[in-house]
Amino acid sequence: MRVLGIDPGLTRCGVGVVDGTVGRPLTLVDVNVIRTSPAEPIQQRLVTIERGLDAWLDEFEPDAVAVERVFARSDSSTIMGTAQASGIALVVAARRGLPVALHTPSEVKAAVSGSGRANKAQVGAMVTRILRLDAPPKPADAADALALAITHVWRGGAVARIEEARIIAQARIEAAQKAQRKAAAAAAARSRQ
Amino acid sequence: MRVLGIDPGLTRCGVGVVDGTVGRPLTLVDVNVIRTSPAEPIQQRLVTIERGLDAWLDEFEPDAVAVERVFARSDSSTIMGTAQASGIALVVAARRGLPVALHTPSEVKAAVSGSGRANKAQVGAMVTRILRLDAPPKPADAADALALAITHVWRGGAVARIEEARIIAQARIEAAQKAQRKAAAAAAARSRQ
Repeated sequence: MRVLGIDPGLTRCGVGVVDGTVGRPLTLVDVNVIRTSPAEPIQQRLVTIERGLDAWLDEFEPDAVAVERVFARSDSSTIMGTAQASGIALVVAARRGLPVALHTPSEVKAAVSGSGRANKAQVGAMVTRILRLDAPPKPADAADALALAITHVWRGGAVARIEEARIIAQARIEAAQKAQRKAAAAAAARSRQ
Repeated sequence: MRVLGIDPGLTRCGVGVVDGTVGRPLTLVDVNVIRTSPAEPIQQRLVTIERGLDAWLDEFEPDAVAVERVFARSDSSTIMGTAQASGIALVVAARRGLPVALHTPSEVKAAVSGSGRANKAQVGAMVTRILRLDAPPKPADAADALALAITHVWRGGAVARIEEARIIAQARIEAAQKAQRKAAAAAAARSRQ
């Protein structure tokens, strides 16, 4: 299978394509970063990212897309731009009907290095070794995109299916809780009459 | 001028179209919310929002789009979804070449009610009065979208131009600081030799 990994970011959005299957050596197809200038308005930067990602999908026709899951952290001033870029990555893939999976940074680190707390240099070194490259891909966003693609090949579609099941279960639980609250409120209203 | 206001959200994305110019009564054209189900994967929800917004732009052909500016707040579990939805709103408008402006919630509250700390009910009441409606638009996300569109008509393009100037100035300051740091590092390296 061919996987496009996307490390979303507004200034540097990492993109990396990997070919392979579980249990066989993986191959690097291409890797780069889509750059946008902080001097441009946010909407133009997002359009540049959208066009860049569309061009990668057109050229490499991956079977699946893996995007880094972004978390709200109060310690980052760039988090909103990263979240917006990740939204674009998800839409660009999903509107083509491509399977999309989200992997957390620690899942990716654990998959490629064995430790969820590996640093950038360790991830870069493992990506270099796994794909038999001469040197770690630069910048780190490019290496991270390849690490995402590698993680996706190795973890397979299982994660996406588990996540889908979790979302459906969560929605059912919330619907049941809502119905229970409504029933309790109705009972309370009746008892007041 | 005709403005589409967008209050971005994953479960309810408010959309409202207003016609008018500064100093004349404004007119409601249409208002609604685009809804997506929490039972669906995030990428499908974002595609539904994208399609919904594209349909509104096709139907009403606004001259400008006003989107609520989203801030990172640690107290909200839905903030990442809201940021992703806002990214979609910005891209959908910008790739058509439409002028896009971002207004903060307090700018919108101040514009329609005179106070940046107005509550939902006060904003709804003022939108009702400004657009001469029979009742406040429901849900609140729909009223907020109209408040955004009203704000945009009243503040005009000035805000967008100021914001653009601010971004360019900021980028210049950062570039100058970077050059200064590089020069300082080079001087330090020379003095060590």
